[in-house]
Amino acid sequence: MSDTERNWHSHRDAKAARLANAASLLDGKFAKTKDAKAVLETLLSSGDKVVLEGDNQKQASFLSQTLASVDPAKIHDLHMIMSSVSRPEHLDIFEDGIASKLDFSFAGPQSTRISQMIADGTLKIGDIHTYLELYARLYIDLIPNVVLVAADKVDHEGNLYTGANTEETPVIVESAAFHDGIVIVQANEIVDKVPRVDIPGDWVDVVIPADEPYQLEPLFTRDPQNITELQILMGMMAIRGIYERHNVQSVNHGVGFNTAAIELLLPTYGDQLGLKGKIVPNWEVNPTPTLIPAIESGWIKSIHSFGGEVGMEQYIAARPDIFFVGPDGTMRSNRAFGQMAGQYALDMFVGSTLQIDQYGNSSTVTKGRLSGFGGAPNMGSNPTGRRHSTPAWQSLKPKDDPLGRGQKLVVQMVETFGSNKRPVFVDHLDAEEVQKEAKLANVPIMIYSEDTTHIVTEEGIAYLYKTDSMAERQAAIEAIAGVTPVGMRSTEKELADLRRRGIVALPEDLGVRRTDAKRSLLAAQNMEDLVTWSHGLYNPPAKFRSWS
Amino acid sequence: MSDTERNWHSHRDAKAARLANAASLLDGKFAKTKDAKAVLETLLSSGDKVVLEGDNQKQASFLSQTLASVDPAKIHDLHMIMSSVSRPEHLDIFEDGIASKLDFSFAGPQSTRISQMIADGTLKIGDIHTYLELYARLYIDLIPNVVLVAADKVDHEGNLYTGANTEETPVIVESAAFHDGIVIVQANEIVDKVPRVDIPGDWVDVVIPADEPYQLEPLFTRDPQNITELQILMGMMAIRGIYERHNVQSVNHGVGFNTAAIELLLPTYGDQLGLKGKIVPNWEVNPTPTLIPAIESGWIKSIHSFGGEVGMEQYIAARPDIFFVGPDGTMRSNRAFGQMAGQYALDMFVGSTLQIDQYGNSSTVTKGRLSGFGGAPNMGSNPTGRRHSTPAWQSLKPKDDPLGRGQKLVVQMVETFGSNKRPVFVDHLDAEEVQKEAKLANVPIMIYSEDTTHIVTEEGIAYLYKTDSMAERQAAIEAIAGVTPVGMRSTEKELADLRRRGIVALPEDLGVRRTDAKRSLLAAQNMEDLVTWSHGLYNPPAKFRSWS
Repeated sequence: MSDTERNWHSHRDAKAARLANAASLLDGKFAKTKDAKAVLETLLSSGDKVVLEGDNQKQASFLSQTLASVDPAKIHDLHMIMSSVSRPEHLDIFEDGIASKLDFSFAGPQSTRISQMIADGTLKIGDIHTYLELYARLYIDLIPNVVLVAADKVDHEGNLYTGANTEETPVIVESAAFHDGIVIVQANEIVDKVPRVDIPGDWVDVVIPADEPYQLEPLFTRDPQNITELQILMGMMAIRGIYERHNVQSVNHGVGFNTAAIELLLPTYGDQLGLKGKIVPNWEVNPTPTLIPAIESGWIKSIHSFGGEVGMEQYIAARPDIFFVGPDGTMRSNRAFGQMAGQYALDMFVGSTLQIDQYGNSSTVTKGRLSGFGGAPNMGSNPTGRRHSTPAWQSLKPKDDPLGRGQKLVVQMVETFGSNKRPVFVDHLDAEEVQKEAKLANVPIMIYSEDTTHIVTEEGIAYLYKTDSMAERQAAIEAIAGVTPVGMRSTEKELADLRRRGIVALPEDLGVRRTDAKRSLLAAQNMEDLVTWSHGLYNPPAKFRSWS
Repeated sequence: MSDTERNWHSHRDAKAARLANAASLLDGKFAKTKDAKAVLETLLSSGDKVVLEGDNQKQASFLSQTLASVDPAKIHDLHMIMSSVSRPEHLDIFEDGIASKLDFSFAGPQSTRISQMIADGTLKIGDIHTYLELYARLYIDLIPNVVLVAADKVDHEGNLYTGANTEETPVIVESAAFHDGIVIVQANEIVDKVPRVDIPGDWVDVVIPADEPYQLEPLFTRDPQNITELQILMGMMAIRGIYERHNVQSVNHGVGFNTAAIELLLPTYGDQLGLKGKIVPNWEVNPTPTLIPAIESGWIKSIHSFGGEVGMEQYIAARPDIFFVGPDGTMRSNRAFGQMAGQYALDMFVGSTLQIDQYGNSSTVTKGRLSGFGGAPNMGSNPTGRRHSTPAWQSLKPKDDPLGRGQKLVVQMVETFGSNKRPVFVDHLDAEEVQKEAKLANVPIMIYSEDTTHIVTEEGIAYLYKTDSMAERQAAIEAIAGVTPVGMRSTEKELADLRRRGIVALPEDLGVRRTDAKRSLLAAQNMEDLVTWSHGLYNPPAKFRSWS
């Protein structure tokens, strides 16, 4: 066929043909719940690139279960693109041959099984991504044939209401809707009028009422009663030695008790220091309940969120000055814009990790567990494409370079030994072994040393951005690595020298008294306190309730 | 007022009050064209953060003209947030006191005047941004009170059709619509039914029919007849020495004749080299007409675009397998997603610049001209948050670092002397002076040396990523800097050594014969040829037509 005779609308023709084949199953855009399997068997084609929505919170669980039920003789060797590999059927489809290739971001709950399946050759990995780069590829070289997404409510025109859990739905749907891909939506509910339109109906091809609401995990909820005094000490050091010192205005907190401690120290310890109104008014973070006391006491001006958090709905609806809330009264989250904001508009990212090597590289990938990265590397990296400056950013500018500029603060907060009693500071990351086993192109490092500006442990803070050489960086890490094998290499003399030069700070250097690090310093001691702070608006999920 | 008595919906109250004040001017969401000034005077408030849509192509020109007509006694000291400062009234509003502070990205046509106004103190700069970081801040610390955007068609519910020029409208509107900001839209046309919904009507507060369609510039159109044989030589070198050598699959081309030459060489020179089907199937780029021959001859599989290009509408509509086209048949562009894809999903960025210093830093900011950056630094930087790899990316991985990984190819293509006969290679960038004059926090560098992996001139290619030290990097730059003062420092011996080690390649090292670099090698010689290649579907703007 010569090029002039080429069919330039082959995707459109294929889509029309598939939808025509499914006509008997569809009433307009709507299919019956019981026909879901038949719909997928008709609209999918072997070898398709298929996006299945699901991140670390919201899962298109009805569609993933349905996909796992299709006949592999009819549909096989799909190339799956999934932010999160979270549910058993996400991997079952590979064992059954329905899918064969996977591009993904995060595999928390399935990280052991995915490692084994790669080793066994059951699953071929395309690559591991951050959220943002996986979304990016949907527009470049992983343009999907079919996307499977989840909505709360859908009206008769197919307009989607995704509400507080809008998350990654828009960025996924757009990639298919405008390249003749097929957009299939599971709906919790079909309604006459959606509270608001999150995705226009004419971007949607097929709607299937789900048998039950999509899975939603309260992943960012941390019970204050589990915060330890070591974490409180670290939080106090961070507030004095980083938040205050660098005049941090905008921040993302990762998931964890270290940052939950900081959130609960702002209205108490932060107030004592006179920092209210001076630091962290602006946040890119999920609506974690431990933020409530800081919000209520006037610390926080704005919060944009990647996703929702179960139980926070009413509280958020009552605080539209703080959260991004639609005219209908519920939050609009957006994971793509949230990661963009987290990367480019923040002064600081504060995260945690499972291992840090002697050079300062860190990873959550450990022996036999290929957990992936989620969004941490997007926010926990120095965006060299950034051109605006803020006081915090500029405070890291090297003094002796006329062409120098500031840098993002990327902070790792870890106790020197993990909850498994193993040292967090190691000479070599397990990730180096995992690379070989899983035959990955590169060692799966979450945050590279060069991007890491501070490490906080219960021993002190290492100001890595001040180091001039790798040897000095290693010495600074050793100085705060406690009695781990890495830490044991630090000498008294080295520590004294690093302290003198401001490269390492111990609590006493920061004016933090270890004896002040008491649980009574937390603005909330437990979940019930958070409910009280919220004026009864926060409604914790049952598993976090110890009271009636 | 105690915190428990705090009003947590003050933004919503303010918005409701302003809209109530404008009630007599509104019929539902719709205002009359003649009332536009009164609408803005009622809905704006002095000191507001206001986003005015406009990038380097599409401008909300009716609303910007209207804004310039409001009474400064009523509305003054606005804080303007604008991707692009392109039109005279964009600066008039500062002279008139209507606005006083500006955060922006790009000021091409107004770059001289803006410099002067900063020096005079007429205008206070917040900061200079890339597109992506300016959008990011709309969700963090520049949340707007009012946004002024442009749509093609609007239906009676306020649903917006933005069509091929969707560009930055969605990312701007979302920031206001979900934080009780006011969304004001100028419409080319009010219709009963929009061809498709690009922005849902319930995100929109006020629609004003414009007196004429919004301004739209064919900024990315390059007439092949202006491509020189030097540019063709450079293009041949780039294809052999970079595209082929690194196995580049996905790419962004900046604006300019150098990259236009490459686009027109792919179907000729690229074919001769047997590269068709092997390189650059996937693009993030505006739909530049010089891509037509490569598309028609089967080189290109997909193109996602930041924005549209005047005259390309029919051609794009007829090529939905290549472009992102809606079910209605017209393109959907998206500048925020495009920059995200450009940053995270591409193997390579190829740009051009006005000055490169002896270290490899480059800038388009020159004496007295504060042009800003647009999106180049987003794409022309190495995203250290990227975790997936591709062959091109991996080909830059350092050999001796077990924890090393690949890198984005960031290529600068420049002739050693600019069109103004001044040397492009300079010891110090004019940007260093501009920093002082405009009192900027940092030197306004567009692409930093550390992110620049290759420089191509008419002399040869410097493979900067292979250099081990700044001295070696400088020598490599000198070797291809011709008879500029920087280039004159290169010696025969140094050049021979750099060539031997593969750090510099001359045309003969790449198998490129200077005598082959003829205009006859271009797939299209002029605009008429492009129209022919397009089977008459491309419709060049009048200023590019030399025929009837």
